[in-house]
Amino acid sequence: TTNLQRDNKYTYKMAWLEKPIKGLLLDISGVLKNGDLAIEGSVEAFRRLKASKIPFRLCTNETQEPREALRAKLSRLQFDVDLDKIFAPAPAMAARLRQEKRIPHLLIHPKINCEFDQPPNGVEPDCVVIGDACEAFTYEAMNTAFNILLKLKQKGEPKFYTLGRGKYYMEPNGLMLDLGPFTAALEYASGLTAELIGKPSPRFFKSALDSLELPPDQVVMIGDDIVGDVGGAQGVGLRGVLVRTGKFQPSDENHEKVKPDAIVDNFSQAIDQILQKCCYSCKSQRFDDRVPKK
Amino acid sequence: TTNLQRDNKYTYKMAWLEKPIKGLLLDISGVLKNGDLAIEGSVEAFRRLKASKIPFRLCTNETQEPREALRAKLSRLQFDVDLDKIFAPAPAMAARLRQEKRIPHLLIHPKINCEFDQPPNGVEPDCVVIGDACEAFTYEAMNTAFNILLKLKQKGEPKFYTLGRGKYYMEPNGLMLDLGPFTAALEYASGLTAELIGKPSPRFFKSALDSLELPPDQVVMIGDDIVGDVGGAQGVGLRGVLVRTGKFQPSDENHEKVKPDAIVDNFSQAIDQILQKCCYSCKSQRFDDRVPKK
Repeated sequence: TTNLQRDNKYTYKMAWLEKPIKGLLLDISGVLKNGDLAIEGSVEAFRRLKASKIPFRLCTNETQEPREALRAKLSRLQFDVDLDKIFAPAPAMAARLRQEKRIPHLLIHPKINCEFDQPPNGVEPDCVVIGDACEAFTYEAMNTAFNILLKLKQKGEPKFYTLGRGKYYMEPNGLMLDLGPFTAALEYASGLTAELIGKPSPRFFKSALDSLELPPDQVVMIGDDIVGDVGGAQGVGLRGVLVRTGKFQPSDENHEKVKPDAIVDNFSQAIDQILQKCCYSCKSQRFDDRVPKK
Repeated sequence: TTNLQRDNKYTYKMAWLEKPIKGLLLDISGVLKNGDLAIEGSVEAFRRLKASKIPFRLCTNETQEPREALRAKLSRLQFDVDLDKIFAPAPAMAARLRQEKRIPHLLIHPKINCEFDQPPNGVEPDCVVIGDACEAFTYEAMNTAFNILLKLKQKGEPKFYTLGRGKYYMEPNGLMLDLGPFTAALEYASGLTAELIGKPSPRFFKSALDSLELPPDQVVMIGDDIVGDVGGAQGVGLRGVLVRTGKFQPSDENHEKVKPDAIVDNFSQAIDQILQKCCYSCKSQRFDDRVPKK
């Protein structure tokens, strides 16, 4: 028997490491950084991850900034990452609109306009997309989006997408309303239900998985949101690891619906355990399917 | 037997007139007027009502304008009514705040500020009141209200009032979002449920009833909103009459939850039937309890 199997508690805690881990999905905010500060140990852990060659994607619900701005911000914090490794709701939405040949009415932050194709002039929109518009959530803008939704509903083809359902987030000046409440407002007024793009929608996780070219049971998601990250990832067959940083709350450890595959103190600890296990279980070939022999 | 009893269908339709009617509650928008136009026949019917001396109150969910402005607007349309006959959510809210000695944070239309007592300077609000703030529904104003709500929630005494739950209303330029969606947004973000002031809250109907000094079963509510007017009134023991004007929809005639005591073409027809019956049933004493003898 191995050391792992001898210690029952340890074995239980380490069960999530028994299946091979060939790729990772990482949340950004609350895992790598909080606001404009890197979380302790995350920069070094991120470097170790890159050195290990385990492929990963960053999977964020950030909808206020385009990926390029996010990449630049991460780079300033010493997280060097390629643009095509960042999965965010806005580019996922843009790809979907392109694919379905839709003309959106965009109620989004002016800064992420660049993620979307410029709609042709004079063509009526056939769907509404709401993002974290922030100051652009004016009464007039809400009214315009609402009137378009109602017109689409009367035509019988209402398409309403939201880039997220977050309630609020912390800023230096206090709590700020996220796009969830404004999505709820338009849903209440129109009687429509918006389709969620971004976490925890299965489609969003799958697009990141597709890009890794890995089956879900070989990939682990690491996040600070018990429902959006952990529950969402588990819903499509990934393992979900919760970190005790970011928006983590002690009550999350006994969440009534979502049981994380593991709970770790922080990103650094998760990476350590993953790399340790990978080295232990497969000496020659790093990311092997083989179960260690007894 | 009377003529009424001979014609079954007529008897059924007239059943709501069998009990005495000693007072009326009238909705304004959709019953007396649509926007800036009096509804056909309503001005004359309103005059007949006043001449009959049947006491009445106007019961509106208007929260964009103070009562005085509403009175002036009605007067221009030839509906002459005293200020103390108008029951609206804002003054009802103000009276309640006065009574409970609360300091509100007001997220309302600047025009109805005058309905509220000026809060003392430098005192922290102990509740949030949301009205139809219209252009004043900015991201900043929503954020401020939300932060206060969350602070009150953390203190364990969250009081959150809404002057209505309307979804939208019609203006010459198109549909305008009412305060319901913005209430829903703050509820979603804060996890709190706002208490409704105004129709169809029982408390609001009761305050108008109290002012009439009549028991509910002697009063009839006339409105164009099957749920807010008719259902709300029936909920506190009034009879509810639906008019086929204003926001009335043909589907309201078979509403799954609310069965009006009567459905009439318009306000004028309702008044005609009421006055006819009153004259028929009680020749000497106008608004008597007596049931006509067989």
